[in-house]
Amino acid sequence: MLELKWSPAEKKIAHAAFESALSLERTAIRRDIEAMLAGSADAAEIWTIRDYLNDKARELDEKYDFRYSVLIGVFARLLADGWLTLEDLTGLDATKLELICDRSAIWKRSDA
Amino acid sequence: MLELKWSPAEKKIAHAAFESALSLERTAIRRDIEAMLAGSADAAEIWTIRDYLNDKARELDEKYDFRYSVLIGVFARLLADGWLTLEDLTGLDATKLELICDRSAIWKRSDA
Repeated sequence: MLELKWSPAEKKIAHAAFESALSLERTAIRRDIEAMLAGSADAAEIWTIRDYLNDKARELDEKYDFRYSVLIGVFARLLADGWLTLEDLTGLDATKLELICDRSAIWKRSDA
Repeated sequence: MLELKWSPAEKKIAHAAFESALSLERTAIRRDIEAMLAGSADAAEIWTIRDYLNDKARELDEKYDFRYSVLIGVFARLLADGWLTLEDLTGLDATKLELICDRSAIWKRSDA
């Protein structure tokens, strides 16, 4: 595991980027369940929504891990999945940005 | 435990009443989550909905038990909670109806 130093300014950027991605993803989940409700008048749709929300909660809980020791990997995945842009990460040092981009490319390939 | 005999006609009535109550309750849950979404623009509302649906799933799983050995108690509770009316149970014999009404009154008192 790489030992990277995070300056106070970088920590602030990291926190904001993390919260922004999480917020975007929550909003997308909300839109999904609104679409599920709009798409079916069946009351039993509530159980489909429940399963979907439980799956998403597990996924987000695993994915959004704000520990500096794993944060490069977390940001790489969020970048690959489109929840973050490089702009959100502006201000991190070049080493970190390069690591994030490299690992993001690996995520993208593994998703393809 | 009382050993009651259920005629084929009574079994049919019981099934229909059970399904009708379950359907009403699912519809009410659906309306509740629609109201929760309408009442808050916050994306984090999805986790409140998730908790609510998990609670309701546990509650309904425990409550909707279609075994003839426990059905009098199940109907008593559904009647007390307003998910069933006596009309839904028309056609059951007098002994069963009396038992259901008596136990329903107990449920109502324990809720009060």
